[in-house]
Amino acid sequence: MTRPPLRYERDPASIYRQSFATVEKEARLDRFTPGMAQLATRVIHACGMVEVADRLAFSGEAFAAGEAALAAGKPILCDCEMVGAGIIRRYLPAGNEVIVTLNEAGVPDRARDIGNTRSAAAVELWADHLDGAVVAIGNAPTALFHLLELLDAGAPKPALILGFPVGFVGAAESKAELANNPRGCDFVALRGRRGGSAMASAAVNALAAGLPEVVQ
Amino acid sequence: MTRPPLRYERDPASIYRQSFATVEKEARLDRFTPGMAQLATRVIHACGMVEVADRLAFSGEAFAAGEAALAAGKPILCDCEMVGAGIIRRYLPAGNEVIVTLNEAGVPDRARDIGNTRSAAAVELWADHLDGAVVAIGNAPTALFHLLELLDAGAPKPALILGFPVGFVGAAESKAELANNPRGCDFVALRGRRGGSAMASAAVNALAAGLPEVVQ
Repeated sequence: MTRPPLRYERDPASIYRQSFATVEKEARLDRFTPGMAQLATRVIHACGMVEVADRLAFSGEAFAAGEAALAAGKPILCDCEMVGAGIIRRYLPAGNEVIVTLNEAGVPDRARDIGNTRSAAAVELWADHLDGAVVAIGNAPTALFHLLELLDAGAPKPALILGFPVGFVGAAESKAELANNPRGCDFVALRGRRGGSAMASAAVNALAAGLPEVVQ
Repeated sequence: MTRPPLRYERDPASIYRQSFATVEKEARLDRFTPGMAQLATRVIHACGMVEVADRLAFSGEAFAAGEAALAAGKPILCDCEMVGAGIIRRYLPAGNEVIVTLNEAGVPDRARDIGNTRSAAAVELWADHLDGAVVAIGNAPTALFHLLELLDAGAPKPALILGFPVGFVGAAESKAELANNPRGCDFVALRGRRGGSAMASAAVNALAAGLPEVVQ
């Protein structure tokens, strides 16, 4: 017995076109600037949930600040390997460095020393790269909280903080703290428990290239 | 002016304990076996949404089949780098190989030849590893659809297919096809548009180690 062939869309350009068209039809994007609408579209595309558009908090210049930072060759600082893995390297405008310090040798000891998680300790290793950078947090609330503490203590300011930590302990709270007081940085944050590395990477990819998959 | 220190949970064991306790309190886990409840808990923890427990389809032996495959040293086949990056290597019971073929050299040409996406073409390179393996699909519906087509054409059967492709074109449909006809394989699938690499990795981590972060 041979089965009938499966019927599904196989053309990449058509898949992207249909996907982005669905987002445009179902998501409320009218409150966004064109840049932020592209960022929201990529974030929605990464998670399959059009309603997250309604939970995005952001500063007025967030997209422009992130776009300019990448164009200027600033690095992208990620809280975990998954965020780094989701950044499409060929979209980056200046061969920007993607930095993940979570698995560096000194991190577990540093975490013990400061009484915090490895994710938080890893943020301290960003110090020399923070100034004007794009920060993409897609996993750990403690990474975002500790970044804000370092900024309070006088650390150099990133151009943009992409706040997408996820989960049940500190995710909503860390993003609320960021949105409530972004410490002079531009920011994008998905309010609530939802988030994740795919959304954080998607936001970076939007800053880097918008929606280049759309065939004009 | 010095700001007051931020108040948040900094202890990793306590963060995990509170997270998993929230899942246990809020998610409907009673229909699961103990193994599947651990898998569901990790998947929920990865996405911050307790309600995904209600959308998990799975075969009766899914957890046991995946657990046994990993214990036997079978490889884990992933549809994208992000899924691979989210697999916690130290949890793997037999130093299992994590295989991602998406960026191998021949993939773009093969995609053109078969009139499908790169993600689908990359699945063809799994052929020598499929037998008894754990497949983790966290991104591309076309990867899952094409795997099912290859099984229909007689490809070796993996022990378990973890179906977590995400998005608006083919994600729900490919997972419904898997759940409706798993071709003699065990499977777990999150019905609908939602999914993603973090959930797919989380499912693998559950098969590998359960919930080892819970301090007994």
